[in-house]
Amino acid sequence: MRNPANLGNLRIVLVRTRNPLNIGAAARAMSNFGALSLRLVTPYEKAFREAVSGVGAEELLAAADQFGTVEEAVRDCSLVVGTTAIGNRDLQHELRWLQDGAKEIGRKLVTGRVAVLFGSEKTGLSNRDLSHCHWLLGIPTREEHRSMNLAQAVAVVVYELSRARERPPGKSRASPPDADMETLGRLSAALRESLALSGYIHPRSAASAEEKLRRMLLRFDLNAADAEVLLGMVRKILWKLHAAD
Amino acid sequence: MRNPANLGNLRIVLVRTRNPLNIGAAARAMSNFGALSLRLVTPYEKAFREAVSGVGAEELLAAADQFGTVEEAVRDCSLVVGTTAIGNRDLQHELRWLQDGAKEIGRKLVTGRVAVLFGSEKTGLSNRDLSHCHWLLGIPTREEHRSMNLAQAVAVVVYELSRARERPPGKSRASPPDADMETLGRLSAALRESLALSGYIHPRSAASAEEKLRRMLLRFDLNAADAEVLLGMVRKILWKLHAAD
Repeated sequence: MRNPANLGNLRIVLVRTRNPLNIGAAARAMSNFGALSLRLVTPYEKAFREAVSGVGAEELLAAADQFGTVEEAVRDCSLVVGTTAIGNRDLQHELRWLQDGAKEIGRKLVTGRVAVLFGSEKTGLSNRDLSHCHWLLGIPTREEHRSMNLAQAVAVVVYELSRARERPPGKSRASPPDADMETLGRLSAALRESLALSGYIHPRSAASAEEKLRRMLLRFDLNAADAEVLLGMVRKILWKLHAAD
Repeated sequence: MRNPANLGNLRIVLVRTRNPLNIGAAARAMSNFGALSLRLVTPYEKAFREAVSGVGAEELLAAADQFGTVEEAVRDCSLVVGTTAIGNRDLQHELRWLQDGAKEIGRKLVTGRVAVLFGSEKTGLSNRDLSHCHWLLGIPTREEHRSMNLAQAVAVVVYELSRARERPPGKSRASPPDADMETLGRLSAALRESLALSGYIHPRSAASAEEKLRRMLLRFDLNAADAEVLLGMVRKILWKLHAAD
């Protein structure tokens, strides 16, 4: 099993979140992907009081810090990135798509804290919020349907961040050993005989039929265990066909 | 602005979903990333009746198809993938991590329909559900907190799928189209009957034998032409066994 990257220097900052469920759901997604530090900027009072953790993220939520302004929330960070569904506004900022932006964030995380800001459900980040951002991170949604659920946006961003820092340790599970050619030969012979007895193969075309059979069995790319099972099946059928003949 | 990949051949299949909010939220995430076709397998009656679309996904939800069984829901698909939070169970299936698995799914989507299954919030996919899957797709969550919110899991998977298809078309040679699940079902049934007639399968263990057979046939990764040939062979043998009985 693989552990996602350590995102210890990452700060997810939710700005003016309105719905308590969204805070809890965002916390759960963060916890799933190893982003354990949450900051809240003036969430609606009700949202903060009633925020209920998504399953398994109780600790993360309890440890969340609250701030009065974005400025205070990002003060100790060396890179501040705003997320956006990309309307027409704000061409003052450089926009990086999630895939590339996440790589850049990953590099910065090695040496310093990075804040990623998510705006309120209704209005996103304000121009004032954006004035604290180095650049904008764009999630590549469909042009016809840009607006994402807040917690889902958090999920996708933290997934991509954990992914960007992941170096695949290779194949997840050793594949089982392949069938050897000897077993395949036996299988092919037993199958050919069954097909001849049942009239599928005409004696005249037996040779070419055997070749076709072998090619097909090779395409199946059988592993050793399956080949043995299949051979057992075909032999049982063959035995029955002989008994009936 | 960038438009995500066309995922027209993708079918997201939610199996026995309990919470109506999750169906609506999953629909929204799908719509955001261009996965527009939703299938529901026996959602709890209440969940289906009360499913309210996430913002902007009303059309997608209204067009969702409902099925009584997983088998029916994937019948016209040539690749069936189950998602998992990866517990200890089920090492019978090959597991591919999302990053690699999405690439494979992207390749298959070029020539045929692909179903990606998500189990219920409580119990995930059952062993019976899994017996319809070619392999498992693992979302690389933290070992200490594997369990994801259903709609967030859908969001992350469809995001990765739209991302995987952003790549320039690969150089790999077009592979022949895969066998669809309906043909595999017929093949599995004919083979089971032959094995029963020849005494390989005891009537008492017929159900588990069918499940094992299906798993094995899925591992063979048959292409459409080979599946038809194999079906013809087994039917001929079956006919002969019946004639002799």
